[in-house]
Amino acid sequence: MDIKEYVMRKAREAKEGAKALAKLSSKEKNNILQRMAEALKKKRKTLIEENQKDIQCAEQKGLSKALIDRLTLNEKRIEEMAKGLMEVTALPDPVGEITKMWKRPNGMTVGKMRVPIGVIGIIYESRPNVTVDATGLCLKAGNAVILRGGSEAINSNKAIVDVLRNIVKEEALHEGAITFIDIPEREAVMEMLKLEGIVDLIIPRGGEGLIRTVTENARIPVLKHYKGVCHVFVDRDADLIMAEEICFNAKVQRPGTCNAMETMLVDESVAEGFLPTMLKKFEKAGVTLKGCPKTLFIYPNIVEVTEEDYYKEYLDLILNVRVVKDMDEAMAHIAQYGSSHSDAIVTKDYDKALRFLKEVDSSAVFVNASTRLNDGYQFGLGAEIGISTDKIHSRGPMGLEELTCTKFIVLGNGQLRE
Amino acid sequence: MDIKEYVMRKAREAKEGAKALAKLSSKEKNNILQRMAEALKKKRKTLIEENQKDIQCAEQKGLSKALIDRLTLNEKRIEEMAKGLMEVTALPDPVGEITKMWKRPNGMTVGKMRVPIGVIGIIYESRPNVTVDATGLCLKAGNAVILRGGSEAINSNKAIVDVLRNIVKEEALHEGAITFIDIPEREAVMEMLKLEGIVDLIIPRGGEGLIRTVTENARIPVLKHYKGVCHVFVDRDADLIMAEEICFNAKVQRPGTCNAMETMLVDESVAEGFLPTMLKKFEKAGVTLKGCPKTLFIYPNIVEVTEEDYYKEYLDLILNVRVVKDMDEAMAHIAQYGSSHSDAIVTKDYDKALRFLKEVDSSAVFVNASTRLNDGYQFGLGAEIGISTDKIHSRGPMGLEELTCTKFIVLGNGQLRE
Repeated sequence: MDIKEYVMRKAREAKEGAKALAKLSSKEKNNILQRMAEALKKKRKTLIEENQKDIQCAEQKGLSKALIDRLTLNEKRIEEMAKGLMEVTALPDPVGEITKMWKRPNGMTVGKMRVPIGVIGIIYESRPNVTVDATGLCLKAGNAVILRGGSEAINSNKAIVDVLRNIVKEEALHEGAITFIDIPEREAVMEMLKLEGIVDLIIPRGGEGLIRTVTENARIPVLKHYKGVCHVFVDRDADLIMAEEICFNAKVQRPGTCNAMETMLVDESVAEGFLPTMLKKFEKAGVTLKGCPKTLFIYPNIVEVTEEDYYKEYLDLILNVRVVKDMDEAMAHIAQYGSSHSDAIVTKDYDKALRFLKEVDSSAVFVNASTRLNDGYQFGLGAEIGISTDKIHSRGPMGLEELTCTKFIVLGNGQLRE
Repeated sequence: MDIKEYVMRKAREAKEGAKALAKLSSKEKNNILQRMAEALKKKRKTLIEENQKDIQCAEQKGLSKALIDRLTLNEKRIEEMAKGLMEVTALPDPVGEITKMWKRPNGMTVGKMRVPIGVIGIIYESRPNVTVDATGLCLKAGNAVILRGGSEAINSNKAIVDVLRNIVKEEALHEGAITFIDIPEREAVMEMLKLEGIVDLIIPRGGEGLIRTVTENARIPVLKHYKGVCHVFVDRDADLIMAEEICFNAKVQRPGTCNAMETMLVDESVAEGFLPTMLKKFEKAGVTLKGCPKTLFIYPNIVEVTEEDYYKEYLDLILNVRVVKDMDEAMAHIAQYGSSHSDAIVTKDYDKALRFLKEVDSSAVFVNASTRLNDGYQFGLGAEIGISTDKIHSRGPMGLEELTCTKFIVLGNGQLRE
């Protein structure tokens, strides 16, 4: 098979699909999503059977238990995917919204209207629910989607896409609305990344290797969902009880996520009062601690942290602890070692709170709240397709709005350029 | 010289410069811009002398008159550059603006705050005024700028950058605020394009070749300012006198710009009444006409247009004329041959106006106004750094706001993730 031609053909179909989708009303889109949700539930047996093939294959290959867990589909997870689609139907449709409108001295009215981006390529790994979540959000925002899942989930993804495309067919929508690249060759990804003028945006979701490959080879815009090396800074003017709760939540509530805290920074004037209770609490919860020399002085018997550790995204119950001179040193640490994802200060001081908000350059900056709250649902955006660590177009949780772009519209009555 | 190392060093300086710039108040930034404007005027003799070197070199190389004209600096043009900077000081500072803020059920307040993008690389050709315009806009939006001008303007650009950097020094701002890549090697551009994590955005301004090179090699986000193949569609329900004025303005007022009309589409039911007067007027203004068979039937003695012509950005007094069956055929033509830049309809029909606005997928869509109005000043954005033909981040004229990004800010009082 000529892979280049195959990918190109799929992408052209997607472009036609995007044109059809852009014309649908909210009601039509919601109806399609609702029917997809119902179909997924109805076909759950087939989906689980197909998923079993992937799982057997993964077991034969000796993939880790965690990976196999992420890969697994069961009744509950299929129910959740369907529920996710229904939640998207309930969100307001961003397409056609006029975000501003103003009058110019020459009498013309200029506005900005939200429109679909067009064709969005999603390149992702293992978790088959991404197939449904990404499709739901892209479709609701009027975009066609080209899906390229990982080879380890190929049977599950194919089965899911079959269900979704079947509804597309039944509703007489252009089939290019959902396209699935069903050949395993890596070259297919490379070809996708070159489709300037056909694919409008690529969203990679997966590990560092995948994201690097995509970034280095794409000729089309990419929105990355990269790692989170997140911090909480306990200021000398913090409510220490609140600080303890926030730090504990940020580390322990779900350590495997990108918005979990990896390094706790503590102002030296409160370190002695704060650290012993806090660190005991962490140890009791099974957290492995790594401390800077000053931390070790206050709380011995833990490992000394290395500079390299400060760059790490543990995604696990491991925490770096550093005592700093003041907020400036904390902010310098965050700028140096952080990944500009989610960073928090705990303080009662007004000026420091405002300075931290202004000067820390992260996708979400928190005063007196847990970094774990950096999330589309928590922020009230509805569902999210991920948390963008890029600055361009969308930064932080990406909801439906972020899957659209704007165009200028001009209502004139004969205006000319002088 | 190790070019890779040289570019990396410059970029790291720029990153430090960006940090310093992000902290400046609007007043401080405006003061710097104002002093730069004054310094440019004061140093105009040196600038013109240095510019003469470039012009002599260009003449020796036998560059075209048009190119030499674009390259030339004279008192008037220096005055205009200074005036441009002063205009930027008058624009509102987007940095720190909180664009929305809302309360969540758990009591935390979530908002979006505009912040600088960081380090912006501008890769441009010939016109030395870009050095000043781009720097002014980037600085006001709190961004450090890495400038890479064309080799044909190297002396002029160097002299201008000297003047600007001198003010940076005098005002004790970090020198990385303005960085100039002053080595001619093409490799330097290639290195710039790879600086992920240091350079945040690349804006190429120049011909198709430059933009293609940048897009194909960049690993960082790029905002293109690509070609404009723009249309005016004269509907059967148009006010034909208004249509004549708009079409004439769109083609003739300044044909060398990206928002000038390249193809005029006319509904067949008004073609016979509209075309003869209109086309005579165009010919009188020196426009070379190329017509479709139906146009030739009504107005013989002009060249027949080819399909290839419909894709062309003439940037000149040349116009394609096509008679279409109805608005649907006009919109299909625009989707097929256009570049999604600026497209207009002239009509008195309400439904068609709204459909055209909604369905034509261009950076600016006009009802009853000239495509030539697609411009930052005309739209009221103040100065513009160009007209983005990309969909991601910014589409259409890019002003100060588009040179910022947003981050989420959260004001809490102890909120945790449940």
